[in-house]
Amino acid sequence: MGNKVTPRTLSGFMELLPQDQLKFDKIAATLKQVYASYGFLPLDTPVLEASEVLLAKAGGETEQQIYRFNKGDTDLAMRFDLTVPLAKYVAKNYSSLTFPFKRWQIGKVYRGERAQKGRFREFYQADIDIIGDTKLDIINDAELPSIIYNIFTSLGLDDFTIRINNRKVLSGFFEMLNLSDNITDILRIVDKLEKIGRDAVAKELKELGADASQCQEILDFISISGTTAQVIEKLRGYGGKNETFDTGVDELAAVTEGIAAFCVPEKNYRIDLCIARGLDYYTGTVYETTFNRHPEIGSICSGGRYENLAEYYTDKKLPGVGISIGLTRLFYILSAMGYLSDGASVGADVLIIPMTGDLSYAIGVSNTLRNMGLRVQIYFEQKKFKHKIGYADKLGIPFAAFIGEDEIAAGKVTVKNMGTGEQVTDTLETVADLMKATLSKAQSEKIIRLD
Amino acid sequence: MGNKVTPRTLSGFMELLPQDQLKFDKIAATLKQVYASYGFLPLDTPVLEASEVLLAKAGGETEQQIYRFNKGDTDLAMRFDLTVPLAKYVAKNYSSLTFPFKRWQIGKVYRGERAQKGRFREFYQADIDIIGDTKLDIINDAELPSIIYNIFTSLGLDDFTIRINNRKVLSGFFEMLNLSDNITDILRIVDKLEKIGRDAVAKELKELGADASQCQEILDFISISGTTAQVIEKLRGYGGKNETFDTGVDELAAVTEGIAAFCVPEKNYRIDLCIARGLDYYTGTVYETTFNRHPEIGSICSGGRYENLAEYYTDKKLPGVGISIGLTRLFYILSAMGYLSDGASVGADVLIIPMTGDLSYAIGVSNTLRNMGLRVQIYFEQKKFKHKIGYADKLGIPFAAFIGEDEIAAGKVTVKNMGTGEQVTDTLETVADLMKATLSKAQSEKIIRLD
Repeated sequence: MGNKVTPRTLSGFMELLPQDQLKFDKIAATLKQVYASYGFLPLDTPVLEASEVLLAKAGGETEQQIYRFNKGDTDLAMRFDLTVPLAKYVAKNYSSLTFPFKRWQIGKVYRGERAQKGRFREFYQADIDIIGDTKLDIINDAELPSIIYNIFTSLGLDDFTIRINNRKVLSGFFEMLNLSDNITDILRIVDKLEKIGRDAVAKELKELGADASQCQEILDFISISGTTAQVIEKLRGYGGKNETFDTGVDELAAVTEGIAAFCVPEKNYRIDLCIARGLDYYTGTVYETTFNRHPEIGSICSGGRYENLAEYYTDKKLPGVGISIGLTRLFYILSAMGYLSDGASVGADVLIIPMTGDLSYAIGVSNTLRNMGLRVQIYFEQKKFKHKIGYADKLGIPFAAFIGEDEIAAGKVTVKNMGTGEQVTDTLETVADLMKATLSKAQSEKIIRLD
Repeated sequence: MGNKVTPRTLSGFMELLPQDQLKFDKIAATLKQVYASYGFLPLDTPVLEASEVLLAKAGGETEQQIYRFNKGDTDLAMRFDLTVPLAKYVAKNYSSLTFPFKRWQIGKVYRGERAQKGRFREFYQADIDIIGDTKLDIINDAELPSIIYNIFTSLGLDDFTIRINNRKVLSGFFEMLNLSDNITDILRIVDKLEKIGRDAVAKELKELGADASQCQEILDFISISGTTAQVIEKLRGYGGKNETFDTGVDELAAVTEGIAAFCVPEKNYRIDLCIARGLDYYTGTVYETTFNRHPEIGSICSGGRYENLAEYYTDKKLPGVGISIGLTRLFYILSAMGYLSDGASVGADVLIIPMTGDLSYAIGVSNTLRNMGLRVQIYFEQKKFKHKIGYADKLGIPFAAFIGEDEIAAGKVTVKNMGTGEQVTDTLETVADLMKATLSKAQSEKIIRLD
């Protein structure tokens, strides 16, 4: 062969080495397991859609980032989130679905953003949504924080706070202040409180036309704190003046009571009147989740309640509530911070190393151990012993099984624990049990290890 | 909202309803489990690559089918298989990988083929490959049929035949006949034996310039049959005249002996001298797998041995052996033929139906049952009882758990088996055990059911 093409991967596209891919897969498997444990159903939609369908709602910045092209005379676009495909799917399959429709989807989405470190153009989103037909009970909004809690604790991350708010509380409050014309702008400013601070928020509010007393009211309001019960009580103090506000407080009270019923510990959630979520389609409950020791990375799981999922496709009213995890980014951050345990980054449990030319006994051993539930690889290449054992070492395979003349004659196998160096010659049943005992300890290790 | 966009999915793009998606996922999970049990490592490469990289080798028909476009000044293409991305990956990460490198990948690939029934433009391929550095022992070629065997029997499909051949046997034989200039064409014709029949093959061979005696030799040769041992013996009869041929027979003998050592039953594999695989990069062992009662669907798992995976990217010699399953097509066929069991098509194990306004006891029950390993959904909507129980029925949820005043007072729960109608009121532990016993029977059911 003459000229070679340089093998490269596009910038902004994550492509992992096997040991990292194993970790990523363990995280994804944990998410799926938790989603399924709440009765969510899997969904897999195409990466490519007709542009007309995918961009029914999009506009502005989003549209510029989209990978859009023609093939023949078809105008195509790659999905940029999992929400629009869900809306299309539910509208299209309305009569075949049973509502409330609970679905999870983990899939790649595409955004042609400016390339920079930690920003991805192809990335996984992990979404769950509960979609109602015409109505969806508010208590569903309490189930999602319970799922967030289960996901992160199952992964090994317990140092997080789920922040909960309700858009009706915010917009009702601003109506009371006669600032309802500027609600969208105010919410946008208020949403930045943590980023830019109290003074900068006040300044921006003034620029928007709020007078000193309005500014003070807003700042007092968004600073309300305490236990969930205390915050609800303080909010009740503003009650009776605005219907939207009162509804919002009722919802927030129902949701936080529900979260407690779901046994989410108090330390892992709180009402935060500052969060509003950027997207303009949330209409009730909103969520953000912060990794407490790293607030700088922003929310690691966000979402909320919306009035109408699919209004661009159907007249049916389909309210819903959902959350989304930016899985690729989360993995990138956890990995870069060194929080991912190596326990999951092994492919095989045992490497069988044949020491004689006759492989049939070794292959038989591999069959038997595999049937006993072990992941078994045989080293087939004709290399020196040092190279063979080095292979197990490099791949982090926890056990090596040697099969020589003696083992074949005795119908046994010699197993070496690569970590401790311990070596045992015994029957297949016995060595399998020994290996499984060690492995089950490693497998129960959580993928995220903060210490 | 005014004008609606019609929610549609592009033709040639599979998008399943939840009950079918559950079945698809069960098949994919079985594949992953078997791959991992042999020590294969997961790989996930981008869907988009630089066209220059992805098309380093492609040409002709393939190139026309490719989804290729510009974004800014970057020329991009969507992957059309998982082999080229693997070659790129191995060449790019050569120094970080440990060889033999065993990887599995299940991912979507894209081909803008003419739309027709059962043909997909976006479809999953499930690939495994073993890549050696400079050399790769022939016995690896025996492991792959063992994996094919395990995959299909784990899925519940035992009525299949893995057909094995060796390209060296074929090309050596044609060299003996002095037809080596036409090897590629002859192989192409021979490959069609089953499709077009003996006479049509003879006719095409004559058109190619083979004389009557050559034709007869070829037809006699490709008709060699019998047990594996008998076929090898008959092939040995042609030995001693051509080195390539003799090497091929040695390889075929080693591979078939290895397959027997892996305990693949004789009925599930055989040497078939007619198969050659269309792709021109296979150089040794080749595989096809036929669903015996449906030969018309062609091979459901194919692959083979190649000399050099990544010659377009690197000077390193990287021989390998691999197999591929066209998962989307296989699913489509099995589903259309009614071979997929409904056992897997359920999301939740139990639907909790609260009969009182107070949900906290019901939520507590859901937590407990979930911690016991059950998949639990709560019906939260305020509907009539008939509607609630109908929800479990429509979704095929096998158990409903009723929680009324009596259950709350007694700290118990009433569980109904939706299939048999049996109803039991007891403690959570007892009903959980009852449900698990029934469920584990259903879960052990294989996804493919031929009868």
